[in-house]
Amino acid sequence: MKFTCKQQDLSRGLSVVSHAVSSRSTLPILANVLLSAEQGRLKLAATNLEIGINCWVEAQIDEEGTTTVPARLFTELVNSLPQGSVQVTAQPDTHVVNLQCLGLGINTNVKGMDPSEFPLIPTAEGGEPPILLEAPLLKEMISQVAFAAAKDESRPVFTGVLVQVREEKVTFVAADAFRLATRTAPLPGATEPREDILIPARTLTELARILPNEGPVEMIVTPNHRQVLFHTEQIDLVSRLLDGTFPNYRAIIPLEYKTRAVLETKALTERVKAAALFARNSSNITRLKISPQGANGSETGTVTIEATAEDLGDTTSTLNAAVDGEEIQIIFNVDYLVDVLNVLDAPEVALEVTSPMRPGVLRPVDATEYTYVIMPMHTNRS
Amino acid sequence: MKFTCKQQDLSRGLSVVSHAVSSRSTLPILANVLLSAEQGRLKLAATNLEIGINCWVEAQIDEEGTTTVPARLFTELVNSLPQGSVQVTAQPDTHVVNLQCLGLGINTNVKGMDPSEFPLIPTAEGGEPPILLEAPLLKEMISQVAFAAAKDESRPVFTGVLVQVREEKVTFVAADAFRLATRTAPLPGATEPREDILIPARTLTELARILPNEGPVEMIVTPNHRQVLFHTEQIDLVSRLLDGTFPNYRAIIPLEYKTRAVLETKALTERVKAAALFARNSSNITRLKISPQGANGSETGTVTIEATAEDLGDTTSTLNAAVDGEEIQIIFNVDYLVDVLNVLDAPEVALEVTSPMRPGVLRPVDATEYTYVIMPMHTNRS
Repeated sequence: MKFTCKQQDLSRGLSVVSHAVSSRSTLPILANVLLSAEQGRLKLAATNLEIGINCWVEAQIDEEGTTTVPARLFTELVNSLPQGSVQVTAQPDTHVVNLQCLGLGINTNVKGMDPSEFPLIPTAEGGEPPILLEAPLLKEMISQVAFAAAKDESRPVFTGVLVQVREEKVTFVAADAFRLATRTAPLPGATEPREDILIPARTLTELARILPNEGPVEMIVTPNHRQVLFHTEQIDLVSRLLDGTFPNYRAIIPLEYKTRAVLETKALTERVKAAALFARNSSNITRLKISPQGANGSETGTVTIEATAEDLGDTTSTLNAAVDGEEIQIIFNVDYLVDVLNVLDAPEVALEVTSPMRPGVLRPVDATEYTYVIMPMHTNRS
Repeated sequence: MKFTCKQQDLSRGLSVVSHAVSSRSTLPILANVLLSAEQGRLKLAATNLEIGINCWVEAQIDEEGTTTVPARLFTELVNSLPQGSVQVTAQPDTHVVNLQCLGLGINTNVKGMDPSEFPLIPTAEGGEPPILLEAPLLKEMISQVAFAAAKDESRPVFTGVLVQVREEKVTFVAADAFRLATRTAPLPGATEPREDILIPARTLTELARILPNEGPVEMIVTPNHRQVLFHTEQIDLVSRLLDGTFPNYRAIIPLEYKTRAVLETKALTERVKAAALFARNSSNITRLKISPQGANGSETGTVTIEATAEDLGDTTSTLNAAVDGEEIQIIFNVDYLVDVLNVLDAPEVALEVTSPMRPGVLRPVDATEYTYVIMPMHTNRS
C-alpha cells in the first residue's frame, strides 16, 4: 500500500473515525484505524462493534492495499505534523506503516496490526430505498430528542430513539420514565409507510458530532433489518438497531391543558439554571407557580420559579408571561427543564399544565413540531 | 451591609478571588469568599492559607459591613444572572446574604458564615519599598521560569522561584534536579541590593492567571519577611515565602560549548512533540544529533531528532540548522524540551552542548536574557 495525501485531510478524516474507536475493548484490533487505499481514494474505518464509521479522504493512490494502525498514536502523530504532503507506505508482511513528510526530513514508522482481523463494517447495498434528510435538520432533530432517552440500560428500548416515517413526515421520539421528547419534520414524497426503527441514542449523538454542516444525508436500513446506515459524500456511519417495542408514545402526550403560559426562552433558561444551583442539593425540586393576569393584583400574567436547599439558601424569580387559564402550582425536576431549554432555539416557549399531579408539556412557540412531556414531582409539602 | 454593583463586575471579581478558594480544606470558612463593603468600594477576598487574594470591585455602598458566602455557589449564582444591577444585603446576625436583581423579580438568599472566622490576609504596610514590574513582563517571566520548579515537595526549596534583585536587574530562577530556567529583566533605578526571596512556583502561576494584561505591578515583601504581596489597582495577591537557601545556580550554567546549533523554534517544537509520542513509551528518551555543514556530505548543518518505542515504532526528523563546532550526539528527556519550547516566543533558538555527559543549554536568539540548562540522559546504548 502506498498513497500521498494532505496532512490536513488525513487529520480531519482521523478525527471523524476516532468517534468509533474503542480504546477499552478486549479486542486490541478495535483500538486501530483501518487504512484502505482503494479505487483512487483513501478509506479510513473504525468500529467499536456498536457503531462503525467509514470516512473517505482525497489521496493519490500509488499502490492499493489495506493495513491498520493504532488510532490514538497515529492521530496524534498526524496532528503533530506541519501542513503539506504526507506519504504513507505499508509493507503487507510486517504491518509496519511508514509515514514521511516530503521535503521536511520527517520519517516515522508505526507498528500496525493484521488488517484481516479488522471487523467488517456492513454496507447498505440491497437495503430499502434511502430516506433523505438535510444534515442541519437531522442534527437539530437529534439534539432536541436524544437527550431524553434513558442513560441506564435497565430497559433497553428507552435507550433508543424511535424513528417513524408516516404520511410524508418523519418523527424522532425518545423517553425515559419521567419525560418524553418528540420532533417531527416534513419528508416530501415519503408516502409509503416504513417499519419503525429504534436507534441507540448514543449513536445518534455521535452521528450529530461528525455530520457536515450542510448537504444531504441518506438513512438506509440494511437488508437484514439489524442495522441502519447514515451516508454522506465522505462519511458512512453504521449503527446496530435496538430490539423491542417502543410504547405507544402518543398516549402519553396530554391532549389538552387547563393553564398555558408563554415565556421568553432565554429568561426562563437563565432563571431555571439559577434555581438548579439550589435544587441540586434538594432532590432537584423546583416549584413553578403560574398566575394569570389579575391574580394577586398583578398587571400581567407571571410564572414564579422557586428552589430551596436547607443548607444553602433559596431563590425565587418571577417572570412576566402571557397566561391563559387558572392559577396553578406544579413541581418539576429542574434537570429535566434545563435539558430541554438548552436545545430550544425559538424565542418563546409555551408551558401547558393541567394539574400538579399530571404531566406538563413544553413546546417552542414557532413552526417547529416539537413536544416535550415532563412528569411532575410530588412532595409531602405540595 | 448593603451595596449595589454591576453583575459583570461582581462576576469578574469572583473569578479572580476563586483562584485562592480552598474547596478541600478542613476549615469550612476557607471555601467562602469574604465580602466587605467599605470606603466606597466592595472588597472580595479568599485564601487557602498559602495564598490570599483581595479584589476590589466598583460598587455603590449603602451600608458598610462584612460577611462571607460559599464561594462556588455564590460565583455560579452571580454568573447565572443577566447583566445589570445586583443588590446585595446581609443581616449581621444571621449571615444570610440576600441578592436581588433590580426590576427582574429575582430574589435569592444564600447562607453565609460568620466573617470573624475568616483569616486575616496580611498587607504590606511598613514593608520595603515596592519593586515595580509591568504586568506583561512579569507574566512572561513567570511563564518562562515557573514550570522548571520541582513538583514534588521532597526538597522544598526547589518548589520555589528565586527572585534576585541586583544592579538594576531582576532575575527569576527555578530548577529541579534535571533542569534550570533563568530569566533576567532590567529594573532601572534598583541600585540597592535586596534580600533574595523564594516564592512558591504554584503561587506565581496563579498570579500570572489573574494579573491584568497591562499596567504596573508592585512587588512588596512584608515587614516580617515571611510573605510577598503583589499589588495592582484592583488586585492584591499575598503569598508565603519559602524558607531555605537556593543553591548557587550560576555554578550550574555552562560557560562555554563545543557545538552550537541555531534552529527555527516552530519547526523544532513540532518535531520534538512528534518525538514525544514515541518517547513517552520509552523513558522519554530522545536522541539529538547535531551535525555541522559537510558532515555526511550535507550541504547545511542539521539537527536530527529521534525517538523509538519498542512496541509502537520510531520517528526520525532532520532539521536544517546553522551549526558551529563538531558533530555530537546527546540524549534528552523529551518532556524537558517540550516544556521550554512551549514558552519561547523568539523565532529561533540556540542549542549549545559540550559533551553527551554534560548539561546542554537552550536560549532564544533575541534580546531576551533567558537561559535553560538541561541535563542529558544516559543509556547503555549511548
